[in-house]
Amino acid sequence: MKLYSAAKAPNPRRILMFLAEKGITDVEVVNLDLAAGDNLHEDFRAKNPLAKVPVLELDDGTCISECGAIYRYLEELKPEPALLGSDIKEKAIIEMWERRAEISFMSAVGQCFQHSTGFFKDRMTPIAVWGEESGQLARRFLPVLEAQLSNHAYLAGDEFSAADISAFCALEFAKVVGIRPDAEEFPALVSWQQKIKQRPSAAFM
Amino acid sequence: MKLYSAAKAPNPRRILMFLAEKGITDVEVVNLDLAAGDNLHEDFRAKNPLAKVPVLELDDGTCISECGAIYRYLEELKPEPALLGSDIKEKAIIEMWERRAEISFMSAVGQCFQHSTGFFKDRMTPIAVWGEESGQLARRFLPVLEAQLSNHAYLAGDEFSAADISAFCALEFAKVVGIRPDAEEFPALVSWQQKIKQRPSAAFM
Repeated sequence: MKLYSAAKAPNPRRILMFLAEKGITDVEVVNLDLAAGDNLHEDFRAKNPLAKVPVLELDDGTCISECGAIYRYLEELKPEPALLGSDIKEKAIIEMWERRAEISFMSAVGQCFQHSTGFFKDRMTPIAVWGEESGQLARRFLPVLEAQLSNHAYLAGDEFSAADISAFCALEFAKVVGIRPDAEEFPALVSWQQKIKQRPSAAFM
Repeated sequence: MKLYSAAKAPNPRRILMFLAEKGITDVEVVNLDLAAGDNLHEDFRAKNPLAKVPVLELDDGTCISECGAIYRYLEELKPEPALLGSDIKEKAIIEMWERRAEISFMSAVGQCFQHSTGFFKDRMTPIAVWGEESGQLARRFLPVLEAQLSNHAYLAGDEFSAADISAFCALEFAKVVGIRPDAEEFPALVSWQQKIKQRPSAAFM
């Protein structure tokens, strides 16, 4: 398998972390230079028409994009340790938190980054007011995380899961737009973030 | 089970359609009035801190939100007919298209609706220029759908799946912001839309 990735990009980091947690090592990582537009070339668009990383290319040439879909493939390929849940309720709750982390947090942080820094202004028009609003939306997710982590060791319950990976990678990326939860206001969140950071898988990016 | 829904809202429609395809009928549907802010009350936020429908409440009180997570729960509960795939590759490809439909299409249509119509202006500040840009982003997903549907009977391949449900509900909702694919420009997409519309499950909303 081949993983099209990009150094320090938050979504590819989710997959690198997931692979490390699974102990899957037979994946060739191909780093694209997003600032240079490597992902916009025709040959990459043939792998993902949305021109985004990560993409997991299987040995038969099938290309899978969208982190949740890559998680699914890897979980089916190597079920242990389970990162998407073991019984019906666990599976649903992990997917709920994983989607919340992706849609309501990672997306907001990403929009804030794109629209407030102008990092991709060669290929999109940053809308400053939307960048600011997205930052506010991302910040509004912090109390949701705090409330959940005040009552649970991990985001989706007692066990580490893919939901932790998605939320952690979003929170780490949020630093680039100045979002850092304060330990006094968000003690459970900050303590969880430090705990996840100590996992060997957190070093991959 | 109880489904917290809202008449004609696009995301609850995905679940109503999924339930109908599965033939699951023992679900009490509770319709909230979103315009009146039923979803903003404390008792509903206890079910979903993000204050969004749909929410599936299990008989033990567990609440599951996020359509993808509700799909997962229902698929585990009643595996046939499979709507999330049967083998590893099918599962990954369906989830890839389902997430694309949600993140790159439904979300863009939803943002366009919220920011250009001001429907929820009592609880958010519409940013007109972002509404317009979101509409453009949603339109840019149409050729992606067209390319895929030119080569496949359904969005994720030969079989109807949850990816079709998510993309169809987004496309139907897109009408409210004036996005209707033209049959000359998008023949495969329009033909697929008409085909899905004929399924009995498409009548639930």
